[in-house]
Amino acid sequence: MRATVIHAPNDIRVEEVPDPVIQRSDDAVVRVLRACICGSDLWAYRGESAREAGQRIGHEFLGVVEETGSEVSGLRAGDLVVAPFVWSDGACEYCAEGLTTSCPAGGFWGTPGSDGGQGEYVRVPFADATLVALPSDATSDDRLLSALLTLSDVLGTGHHAAVGAGVRPGATVAVVGDGAVGLCGVVAAKRLGAERIIALGRHTDRTDLARTFGATDVVAERGEAAVEAVRELTGGQGAHSVIEAVGTEQSMRTAVGIARDGGAIGYVGVPHGSGTGLDLGVMFGRNIALRGGIAPVRTYIPELLPDVLSGAIDPSPVFDLAVGLDGVPDGYRAMDERKALKVLVRP
Amino acid sequence: MRATVIHAPNDIRVEEVPDPVIQRSDDAVVRVLRACICGSDLWAYRGESAREAGQRIGHEFLGVVEETGSEVSGLRAGDLVVAPFVWSDGACEYCAEGLTTSCPAGGFWGTPGSDGGQGEYVRVPFADATLVALPSDATSDDRLLSALLTLSDVLGTGHHAAVGAGVRPGATVAVVGDGAVGLCGVVAAKRLGAERIIALGRHTDRTDLARTFGATDVVAERGEAAVEAVRELTGGQGAHSVIEAVGTEQSMRTAVGIARDGGAIGYVGVPHGSGTGLDLGVMFGRNIALRGGIAPVRTYIPELLPDVLSGAIDPSPVFDLAVGLDGVPDGYRAMDERKALKVLVRP
Repeated sequence: MRATVIHAPNDIRVEEVPDPVIQRSDDAVVRVLRACICGSDLWAYRGESAREAGQRIGHEFLGVVEETGSEVSGLRAGDLVVAPFVWSDGACEYCAEGLTTSCPAGGFWGTPGSDGGQGEYVRVPFADATLVALPSDATSDDRLLSALLTLSDVLGTGHHAAVGAGVRPGATVAVVGDGAVGLCGVVAAKRLGAERIIALGRHTDRTDLARTFGATDVVAERGEAAVEAVRELTGGQGAHSVIEAVGTEQSMRTAVGIARDGGAIGYVGVPHGSGTGLDLGVMFGRNIALRGGIAPVRTYIPELLPDVLSGAIDPSPVFDLAVGLDGVPDGYRAMDERKALKVLVRP
Repeated sequence: MRATVIHAPNDIRVEEVPDPVIQRSDDAVVRVLRACICGSDLWAYRGESAREAGQRIGHEFLGVVEETGSEVSGLRAGDLVVAPFVWSDGACEYCAEGLTTSCPAGGFWGTPGSDGGQGEYVRVPFADATLVALPSDATSDDRLLSALLTLSDVLGTGHHAAVGAGVRPGATVAVVGDGAVGLCGVVAAKRLGAERIIALGRHTDRTDLARTFGATDVVAERGEAAVEAVRELTGGQGAHSVIEAVGTEQSMRTAVGIARDGGAIGYVGVPHGSGTGLDLGVMFGRNIALRGGIAPVRTYIPELLPDVLSGAIDPSPVFDLAVGLDGVPDGYRAMDERKALKVLVRP
């Protein structure tokens, strides 16, 4: 089959690789219908996250089950399924608690020895536990397929941030980051009943999308000026809930600065850089909580799926560029150069 | 009256100062029956927290109302009352939410212009909102008075840490810090139904007390060895809830290291030192939350008071040295030299 391979920073290629086969009785092989490129893939692309030469890449996909191992009972060939960005066994204590990302048997697509999402096929471990079946008639609805694809990462991650930030009906929510996760944070905050959603971002095409998704205010300033702007919008208090969807020291500093006393920061931006940006003295004096981390999106899919299927929420507009498999390297370049927000891949 | 005054680091004196008088119609003047010295007072004593020369000191006290302003309606002369370590107006949005420590009109005993708890009398702003009435017959019960005094800070602070750490029935809780707050964290964790309580501390007299309060295990190691010991006690997983009651970079690093995936750190140790001790990469990957800060103990007093009165919980053994007002400077020395855990003051 053909799949995306990362050889070195800035060296992404689409190549012929071995076809995946059932290796364990609980595996499935999925033919990928839709995949995409994630902001976090760019850390590998830019060399900021180490990868072995020749690793596969891509951790978001949905597709059709091609083959199942003998012990797979809940899925059969032909089923339309979406995969969360981490596989998990569904049998351990963490899986039982919903923290599928801490499953000791779990893993990430694209780690050595596994397939990545940006390819024609993926071998899925623990298929019954990992995959979630979707209505098969969704395959004929291109927009819906794109919306369902966000369940594999960005929508669930935005939801995790909103839950971590304690978004409640009536809350004022601020969202730091206008990438796909931040925008899905807006979607999730609105879905959870936020009354006011302040989107922080400098790119008007993205903040316009944030408004479409439910943002009531936009703050284009950065750093201290952003903090002042949010405080001015909130009667000096700041936001009850802050979604941090960037992961830099600067973005976390902003998140702390715009949080209301007693509020919470839900952080899902993968931390990178040396400093945390957390002023613990400020957080202590104002009782600001910090919750979040890698999102156990598998756990959230059953909750979010009905609203995606009904159209109550529609994150599909986060995809602003679509490519075939051969176009994946161009897709990375486009996202790296911020010419695309999020790239859809149709293998 | 006579009261404790801090002139400079290591220079604590008991001096004649002006008698407090009613300044505002919502003031009360309280005659102090019991006060105490807090671990956080030592930061001022050691010069690690700045104080103006001549500031009063002490923020924990209970006593008898001597006089009330014309608008005080819920208290009268002769009432036995306990004061939380921060006064608050009871009228603002934060007070309504229970975050009394963020009350814009609130303040700390001992700040310039206010009385400290380690003296004969204290003028109490917003007396109706700040003070909580106690049964007057408690004055004849020395042990009970000591237990009630912990409501002014350390018990409520330990409770805040336990709440921040998400202590639930059946949880495994680890407590970093064997000072009075950490020990009250043990009391609070047990009260909230923790099944297993691991106390980290090197001083056997203190960890013995922790066992009395409900600790099921004691870890005397520090740093990496402590992390390993807690992991060994918890099947490699760590504790669901970690109470951080020290406030140093080292103690926070330990707290992160011993937290279970998906768990929470409730931190109430006043942060001091340059680093936070927070490894955000670890916290992100394991979804460890951080909640806490300065405890709104006023809010917790009504919840905790019945259990103190009934004897269901009895934190009074945290006081292991008692002095009169003249003995306060010796009390600071004893705590500074770790010869006393917590010093009771009977003015």
